[in-house]
Parts: sequence; C-alpha cells; structure tokens
Amino acid sequence: MIIVLRPDATEEQINHIVSKVQKLGLTPHLSRGTQRTIIGVIGPEDVLRVTPLEVFPGVENVIPVLAPFKLVSREFHKEDSVIELGKGIKIGGNKIVVMAGPCTIENIDLLYEIAKEVKAAGATVLRGGAFKPRTSPYSFQGLGEKGLQYLREVGNELGLVTVTEVMDARDVGLVSGYADVLQIGCRNMQNFNLLKEVGQIQKPVLLKRGMSSTVKEMLMSAEYILAGGNFNVILCERGIRTFEDSTRNTLDISAVAVAKQLSHLPIIIDPSHAAGRWSYVPALSKAAIACGADGLIVEVHSHPEEAVSDGVQSLIPSNFMKMMQELKILAKVSGREI
Amino acid sequence: MIIVLRPDATEEQINHIVSKVQKLGLTPHLSRGTQRTIIGVIGPEDVLRVTPLEVFPGVENVIPVLAPFKLVSREFHKEDSVIELGKGIKIGGNKIVVMAGPCTIENIDLLYEIAKEVKAAGATVLRGGAFKPRTSPYSFQGLGEKGLQYLREVGNELGLVTVTEVMDARDVGLVSGYADVLQIGCRNMQNFNLLKEVGQIQKPVLLKRGMSSTVKEMLMSAEYILAGGNFNVILCERGIRTFEDSTRNTLDISAVAVAKQLSHLPIIIDPSHAAGRWSYVPALSKAAIACGADGLIVEVHSHPEEAVSDGVQSLIPSNFMKMMQELKILAKVSGREI
Amino acid sequence: MIIVLRPDATEEQINHIVSKVQKLGLTPHLSRGTQRTIIGVIGPEDVLRVTPLEVFPGVENVIPVLAPFKLVSREFHKEDSVIELGKGIKIGGNKIVVMAGPCTIENIDLLYEIAKEVKAAGATVLRGGAFKPRTSPYSFQGLGEKGLQYLREVGNELGLVTVTEVMDARDVGLVSGYADVLQIGCRNMQNFNLLKEVGQIQKPVLLKRGMSSTVKEMLMSAEYILAGGNFNVILCERGIRTFEDSTRNTLDISAVAVAKQLSHLPIIIDPSHAAGRWSYVPALSKAAIACGADGLIVEVHSHPEEAVSDGVQSLIPSNFMKMMQELKILAKVSGREI
Amino acid sequence: MIIVLRPDATEEQINHIVSKVQKLGLTPHLSRGTQRTIIGVIGPEDVLRVTPLEVFPGVENVIPVLAPFKLVSREFHKEDSVIELGKGIKIGGNKIVVMAGPCTIENIDLLYEIAKEVKAAGATVLRGGAFKPRTSPYSFQGLGEKGLQYLREVGNELGLVTVTEVMDARDVGLVSGYADVLQIGCRNMQNFNLLKEVGQIQKPVLLKRGMSSTVKEMLMSAEYILAGGNFNVILCERGIRTFEDSTRNTLDISAVAVAKQLSHLPIIIDPSHAAGRWSYVPALSKAAIACGADGLIVEVHSHPEEAVSDGVQSLIPSNFMKMMQELKILAKVSGREI
Repeated sequence: MIIVLRPDATEEQINHIVSKVQKLGLTPHLSRGTQRTIIGVIGPEDVLRVTPLEVFPGVENVIPVLAPFKLVSREFHKEDSVIELGKGIKIGGNKIVVMAGPCTIENIDLLYEIAKEVKAAGATVLRGGAFKPRTSPYSFQGLGEKGLQYLREVGNELGLVTVTEVMDARDVGLVSGYADVLQIGCRNMQNFNLLKEVGQIQKPVLLKRGMSSTVKEMLMSAEYILAGGNFNVILCERGIRTFEDSTRNTLDISAVAVAKQLSHLPIIIDPSHAAGRWSYVPALSKAAIACGADGLIVEVHSHPEEAVSDGVQSLIPSNFMKMMQELKILAKVSGREI
Repeated sequence: MIIVLRPDATEEQINHIVSKVQKLGLTPHLSRGTQRTIIGVIGPEDVLRVTPLEVFPGVENVIPVLAPFKLVSREFHKEDSVIELGKGIKIGGNKIVVMAGPCTIENIDLLYEIAKEVKAAGATVLRGGAFKPRTSPYSFQGLGEKGLQYLREVGNELGLVTVTEVMDARDVGLVSGYADVLQIGCRNMQNFNLLKEVGQIQKPVLLKRGMSSTVKEMLMSAEYILAGGNFNVILCERGIRTFEDSTRNTLDISAVAVAKQLSHLPIIIDPSHAAGRWSYVPALSKAAIACGADGLIVEVHSHPEEAVSDGVQSLIPSNFMKMMQELKILAKVSGREI
Repeated sequence: MIIVLRPDATEEQINHIVSKVQKLGLTPHLSRGTQRTIIGVIGPEDVLRVTPLEVFPGVENVIPVLAPFKLVSREFHKEDSVIELGKGIKIGGNKIVVMAGPCTIENIDLLYEIAKEVKAAGATVLRGGAFKPRTSPYSFQGLGEKGLQYLREVGNELGLVTVTEVMDARDVGLVSGYADVLQIGCRNMQNFNLLKEVGQIQKPVLLKRGMSSTVKEMLMSAEYILAGGNFNVILCERGIRTFEDSTRNTLDISAVAVAKQLSHLPIIIDPSHAAGRWSYVPALSKAAIACGADGLIVEVHSHPEEAVSDGVQSLIPSNFMKMMQELKILAKVSGREI
Repeated sequence: MIIVLRPDATEEQINHIVSKVQKLGLTPHLSRGTQRTIIGVIGPEDVLRVTPLEVFPGVENVIPVLAPFKLVSREFHKEDSVIELGKGIKIGGNKIVVMAGPCTIENIDLLYEIAKEVKAAGATVLRGGAFKPRTSPYSFQGLGEKGLQYLREVGNELGLVTVTEVMDARDVGLVSGYADVLQIGCRNMQNFNLLKEVGQIQKPVLLKRGMSSTVKEMLMSAEYILAGGNFNVILCERGIRTFEDSTRNTLDISAVAVAKQLSHLPIIIDPSHAAGRWSYVPALSKAAIACGADGLIVEVHSHPEEAVSDGVQSLIPSNFMKMMQELKILAKVSGREI
C-alpha cells in the first residue's frame, strides 16, 4: 500500500498516519520527494485495505500494490488448474471442452433430440436451464426440478456431463443432486451468499462474469468459492455491457489472456450470450479457441423458431456441427484437441 | 411490435411470418415500402416478445413498440405513488425524505451516537447495514441479527424509521421482523428470487439500481415486486459504472427525470455510493433535490477513520448538518419541504 | 512515480531499473516489503512518464503519483479563474452565465427572433452553429461564414456575447474574426492541432468534454490551450457515453465537483446534448446550478418542428423563460446570481 | 420510419403529423392498434431523419427502419471490396495483410532495422508515425515531414507499402505525397473536415474506430470518405472504452463479424492499442485471424525500453516473428494466406 500525501500535509498529519500504520502492526516507510511525500507500507495489505486512509487529514490518495485475491491467483498456484467435471471429462488441460444445448429445458423429447445432435458434433457437456433468470416476471421461469430430472436422465442416457444454473442459495442442494456442474449466472456473480453456498460443495462451479464486472472482480467472486473450500471453479467470459448496440453484449476476448495471467483457473467463452445472434457465434467461437480459451458454452436448439427463450442466439444443429468441424482443426493447429 | 423484412424476403417467407402472427392470436398489418416491407402487429405484445421472430427467414429486425413494464408504469397509474414508511413518514409526496446513518452497524453505542446526530439534522430514516455484501470474502460481513436488533432498538428510542439491506431470500422474514424498510442492494437488483420474496410482504422496499442496469431494467425489477402484490417500492439511483474514474460510480442524475416520466414510483438518490468520496456528497445532494428527487440516502459516520466500511465516503455529522441546512432552503424554493 | 517489482525480480533486474532511473536524473528509493519490492522515484515525473518502464524485466506495475496537468491545476493557481467573455460579461465568479440559442443558425430573422427571447429571459451569451459536425455527409453542414456574419450582427444589435463552434484549424482566424467565444466541440476535444491553434489566440475558448473522455483528459486538452498561451478556457460537461439509452448521453453531474477540485477553470453544463430531449432540460439545468456550475449552454428554438438540427432537444422560448425564473431563485439561495 | 403515437394522441395531432409527412413527399400508413396507433412512413427516410418528429404533439417515439449509410453498405455493394495498397499488395481478398512497425518514427536507422525485421517475418506494410496525437502538450509530437521522408525511403528500399497517420486536414497533401496509405486515428474518426479531405484523394485510407464509437458510426464516417469519391477505405477495430481496466481498451472482436455483415469494406484489427501490453498481442492477433479479419496492424520495436512512445505495447522482433509463424498456420486452416 502506498499513501500519497497532499503537498500541504503537516508534520502532525504525517505523524498521525504513521502512528496509525504502526498501530495496525505494519511498517511505514517515508519518502520525501520534491513535489509529494509518500508513505510505503510494508506488511500484509489486507489490514489496510479496510482502513479508510483516504479520510485521514493530509492524505491525497491511497494506492494498493497487491491484488486483493489470493487462492485464485497464479502467484498462489503456478500451474494451470485441471478440473474434473465427471464422466472422465476434464477442463483446463490440453483438451478443449465444448458445452452445448438449449437455453431452457422445455421437455424431455426436445432435450434428448438436441443432446444427441450436440454429442454427435463433439460436445461432451450438455447445458440446459431449469431455473431461468428472466427480466420480466411474466416470462416463463423454467421447469424447476422436473427440468433437472430431464437433464440428468438425458445426460446419463447419452454419457454427457450436465451443467445447469442455480439461482438461489436454497436450491444448491437440489441442483447438485441432479447436475454435474453448477452454473452461477452473470446476474449472480456478486450474490455472495450463493457463492458461499457453492463453496461448501465439491461439485465444479461454472462462474459467469457479471456484465459490468471487471476480470479482477470475477476473480474476487471466485475467491469466495475457493475460500469456502471448493477449488473446482471454471471462469466464463460472456460479454460485458458497453455502448455498442450491434451485439447484445461486447465479448471481451482479452479476458482470456488477462485471466490466464492472473489466475490458474480455466476459462471458457460463451459466444451465444455475448453476440445475441446466432450468425455471429461461429466467428466468436473461433476467436475463443485461437486465443487460448479452455472451452465454450454454446446455445443450440433444433427448432429455434419455437424456443421459449434465446431462440435468436441459438445455432441449429447443422450449423453447430459445421462450426465444430472448423473448431477441431483450429484446436489441432493450436496444439490442443476438442 | 414491428417486424422489418429483409429487402430480399420472399412471398413464402412473408406468408410464413404472417401465419405465425395470426396463430398467436394477433393481427398482422402489412405495409410495402419502396425499400423495405414491414409488418405491424396489432394486439398484446407480450405474446410476441417471447417468440424469437428474428430467426424467421426473411426477417431483418424486430422492434417492440410498448414498454415491457405495466404495474410500475405511469400509464397504469397516473398519479405519483405516496408510500408510508412507518412512524408517520411518507415518501413520494411534497415532503422530501432523508435517510442517513453509517454504512455498517458496528456497535449499539456508535449507532446511537450517529442516529442522534442525523435526527438532529433533520433525517427521519436511519440506515445501517447488518448484512454486508463485500467483494472480498475476507472482509467483515456484518453483525447479522445482532445488528438488526441494535437498529430496531435505536430506531424505536429515537422515533426514526429504519432501513437495512436484505441480501438473501432466506432472510426476508428475519429482516422484515426488525426493520421498517427493506433495501435491495445494487448487486441484487436482478436477483429475481429475492425480488419475488419481498413481493410477498407488505413492508416498503428500497430498490437500488444495478450499476450496469438501465432505468427501464430497474423498472422491470420493480415490476417483479409489484406483480407479487407489494406496491410499496421506492427506486434509488446510486451511480452507474462508466469509464470515468474520478468518482466511484457516475451518478446518473437524469434517471430522476426519466423514472418520473415512465413510472409513478418515488425515486431517491444515494450520493455517497455514487461519489465514493465524502467531499463530493453535498454537491450531488443539492443536485438531487434541485432536480426533483423524493429523497436521499446518505452515509454518515462520526469517526470515519475508524469505520469498518465506506469511511471514505461518509460525511461527519457537522458536515451533514451543514448540508441539511442548505438542502432545506433548496427544497423550500422548489416548493417542497425536508 | 512508483515502480512495483514482480515477486521474482532478480537483483540484476533491480539494478538495471535503478540505473535507468538515475541516468534520467532522478532518485530511486528502494523499499523491500514482505511480498513486493517497490521503487519510489523522486524528481519530476514527466521524464518517466514517457519511459516505458513496464517493459523492463522484473517490473510488475508502474503507478504515477502526480497528475499530468500543470497550468490548469488548482495546485498551480489556487483561486478560481474569472474569464472575460466580452461586453462586460465574466464567467467563473459569482455571476452564473447562461448561453442560449439555436443549435444551427438557419437565417438571420429566425436567429434574431430567438436571440431576443433568450435575452429577455436573462441569457447574456448567444449560441448558434455556423459550422456543424454532422454524422451523415448528407446532412446540412451549416451556413459557414454567412452564419458567422448573422451571429455577429444579431449579437451586436442585442448586446449579446456570441459563441460558436470552430471545427477546423484552418477556420480559427475566420471564426475569431466574428465570434466572442470559440467552442471546441466534443468530437474535437482531442483534435490536438485545433487545440494548439486556439492556444495561439486570446479569445475565450469553450472546451466541450469528449463523450468518452474522463475529466482528467478534458483537463489535459485544456492544458494544450493554456500551454499555447491562452488561459481563457471554459470547461463544459455535456454528457458521456454509457449503456443507458433513455437519454442521448449520461450527464456526469459529478464532473463539476471533480473539475473544481482539480482545476481553477470555470465549468458549465450543456443539458440539451446530455438529455437529448427538451423535457429533461429544466431538471438537469436546476441540478447544474444547485451543484455549483458556473453556467449553462442551452438550445432554444422558437419553431423546433422546423429546426434543421436538434429540434428534439430544444426548448421553446416560453419554457426557457419559465426555467430561467426558477434558476434565478436557485442561484440566489446558493449565494450566486444569474 | 415508424412513428409511434402516445395513447392520448388526438385526431388533430394525428392529422398534423400525417400532413407533415405528406408535405415532405412521403406516404403515411396509419395502423390503429389496441394500445398504440403507429404511422409507417413509406419513401426515402433521409428526408425524415432530419425532421424532429419527436417534438410533434402526440408523438411518443420515432423509430428508423433503414441504416443511415448507403455507399458503404453491403446492400449497395454485395461483394467484398478488394483495395489496392500499392506495390502489388491488396486487402480484402484471400490474402491477409499484416502491417507492422514502430509507433513513432524516431530515426532512419532504427526504422530501417525494425522494417527489415517485420518484412522478414512476413509483414508487407510498414507502419510508423510522423505526426503523433499525444494527450500531453509536453510529449514528443513526432518528426513531421522528416519522419515521412524516412518512411518513404525505407519503404522503397525494402519494397514495403507504407502507412502513417494524418491528423490535420492541412497535411493531407503532404502526407499523401509520401505514404501509400493514410491513417485516420481513432481521435479523428469524427473529424469530418479531415474525412472530407481524404475523400478527395484516391490513396487508400485506414479508418480507425473511435474509442467510443459504435460500428455503425464508424461506417457513417467511412460514408463521408466514399461520398467524397474515395472508395478505398479500410476499417480498423482498435478497442473501445469500457470500465475494464486490465487492458488499455476492450477489443471488440465481434466488430469484425458485424462490419462484414453490414458493409463490403475490409476490416483489420489493431491488437496493440486494444491491449496496451505486448504480452496480450499474440492472443488477440490469433483471435482476429480466426474470426475473419482481413489484416492486422501491430506495433513492433527492436528496443522497446528506449521507445519514445507505446513501448509497453510493442512486440520485439523475435516475438513478432514467432507470432507470425503461428498466424500463417491459422490463416491457412481458415482457407486464407498471410
């Protein structure tokens, strides 16, 4: 932590700050420049982070030196984390994992039909929503537990790992009873009680970036889960909110490189929610694989005209198949495999 | 709903869309222009909103005509809503309501000390957090129920209405047992299950705008609460996330005018979280009153150097007192009263 | 400047950085913490700002301590600058200056008609565009010099100061031959050659904030003008670009308080371009005056239905008059005058 | 254009709007729905775009149906445009063009040294700045004409096409006398007089997206150049401004797919300015090629520690060489060639 003093800071003010720092068990290190005096603070920053040093008289600015996350950081764990998803599928290593399926689970036949298609194309994880966060209270809110049953049934039948969203801390037990991977949606990235709850289980958690969260804030949310004891976290970049309106969100493709530098956790891309239009999904998926993402989560629907949600951004199976063939080649020349 | 067709849309495609619209019980209205054909759809838009018309072959664009919210809209309820907060305090009418207090409830003596000061200055609602959403799992997470007890005790002693945040659907019963007004924090503005839960009670709900939510999305979240049966909702603008980094968030002062045009619900301003620095709070508070906000929620702390959270943005009581005197004059010349 | 080293920085790397700093004539100040070593650099930061220290091996991060602007800073000039606009009008002192008029100068009769109205309401500066920055090449681009002639004629007739935009470095001589104040539009805030050119004259410059520029960047652009020798700069906040779409831009009302803390230059608000709708203009104008802005620039048109540009955001004279009466009262209770 | 009327619009108001539309030579098409009446307007939208219909009494909203650009649109020109850059190099076809070189031209020896390296790696266009837009008036502003001479000399010597920025309408003649391609920087994307000036020449123009401009606004700026008669425009996505602060800007990788859908013009990516750090450049470059960009513009410097600008984001030649080898493979499996 570095404390920058105002040009008119008095000796009394400086002493007051220095003594506060010492009282917290840290070592202040005074450096008097020509235009500003600064105090470097040596010792664990955490103690200072919660002390509002900016309000101390004479302080102009307080600058943290260390990142606020620990367990998720590359410094804490140098190697890439490889996470077991179940049924022999791992993410974070050489193998790129593609998760695909409908936005919402509508009925078992349709889910099975789509699941067969995505499996045939090379997906190993089946996605599908049973609890749906909808901006309107009048929209269909998902099948709930019945949807979870369908998902498990189809997943088992086809040997696919399953992932589905959990929206409520009260449902963590229920959802983890059915699904292999629990998704935390972007609107819940800072639902800290939900994060604590999934920190108590051992099933892998797919943590989606909030649409106005920085990569570092996503890592802080992951820190909640790891701090609870669950190290099986997969990050997911799904587009952030900007002024650009040609796409539903702006895919922050750089987040892959940034997250991989700061953290050991695997990171995947959701091109469907980023683009908001199926026709952009293949281009974004290719970009994701080329730049080093560990996987994708893609919306696929065999009858998008009839989909109860997100039909606009769902690929039909034939387009998904075509895209997967291209992705496999890209993965291969990048030294990986789908 | 207006469906804009591609210049190369075929008759067959047009017929397919028209028959879909009719099958949904709506009336299509074809208009063939020189450069585009458009289909105006007459009837309730809700049915169409969930139908992914953009994926129908031949469709270029789909444009909604109506706002997606109903109960919160000015069209549904022409007059300003006036909401009873308890202890005779109402919001939304001629009287401007100032809510003030510490960010976090730390202990009962400190809370009492601050509460006495804010009451003396003219605040009628005491704020204080018992459950704190913190970006770091290692930060103090609040006193929980003990904090709620202190809040109720101090509120009753001084005759102040109390407001505190509820972060978890499981705590709605607990919190509403102690506090007069339940706050939904900005990170939970789209925690739909929590919104449903506070829609089931009758206590007033202070709904904070998400930091990357539009005003219309805030109104959609309010719609969840009203749709559940609780019409006692107060909106709160607290700054949105932008690229500007001199302030913690960017106060969207226009949100007051926008919300008042679209909705009948009262709206207040939180200058403390918007600014992130106490020295900017008076200027923003004056702007809020001058432009027609129904109230303020302000962080006040008698010892900001020792505050466990948000000390940097807390006013000390003497500055709060000074600001309140100025606000009272501003309110008066604006035809209102504090 | 503070240089934060990587945890694995070697002694050799540290020595390399230290010797670079010394070679630049600065004094390095090493501080070895438990988790990071940092190097505080004492001496003028400018030299370092252009040295890419981040690429030196062993460097994790480089943190500037000082603001990059000088002449515009409050530190350089403690008192508020008061700038003479001509015809006895000054800005930056106790008197609030209201600039008003049509977006575009269309013809002399209309300009005169509007000018009379805004003068009657209390405006002392007449605005009107002769050179118009239009996003479409097919839109009307302004009357050019003829518009400037009309502006001067009407200004002189009515005793109003005049302000108009200059878009091109080649036109600075021409425009300053006619107008009292030269406006740099938001799209040109970082047109550095244009800034240099208006730095060479002595007429006041109204510098509008770029729609994606921070307050500090606006101050850096002002620095260009002051560095050229022209200290007569008035800042203008006119809304920034965000995701919110209910208003044309998001008025960053906090910019007034931020700019006044960092700089001695006067700052005004443009509520018309911020809102993009005339009905929001009065609320934003009141907010501006209440929070300490030194003036306003408002679009007024007597026949907005016929306006060639920005009719949607123009007040009609009677609404402008009504607003001015309210603003005068607000100014008075704020200890100022319109 | 679609005009949505307020629920309380009177017949008189409707007639007033209808007659205005007819007076403009267009055909109104009334459609009375259950909740709103709408007027579809048939005929060229341009006429209406400049008429402020929103201020007509009874109007709730005005919705354009057509894009405002013409010559740049895919509708106007179905095939991808292929643009000749000189020395046999074309962009927009099967061959991907890599432009590389230093941010600023510092001296001829260094430029030659870097140019040889980038050519050896496969770049065919040499970039280098002679006129530099700098946020500080105290920073080095470029060598000016001497820099242009060096660029031409080195380009000719090595058989490389040259690209350099023109910042000022007054310099278009000068710069086009030396360089093969003229770059319009992001800060000048809406410097309309500069756009008009480069519309008058026939040399290719590299148009960089403004950091807060939408893709559609970039296309409108390109429209200025084409409308002037110069159809040789190359678009460039270089990152937009968002709240994310791990990178200098947020690369909007989707812009490639969006621009290619809306327009026939080629589009390239600038990963260096987007990332702001050299270590992220290879990942972003790979993403760009994989998703279909027509080229790259990359900063390369052989001594980044000594670079006078942007050293932090410049690749050293060996890293550039390594990246180019990977890009060639990616291009090949994507059916293209570098």
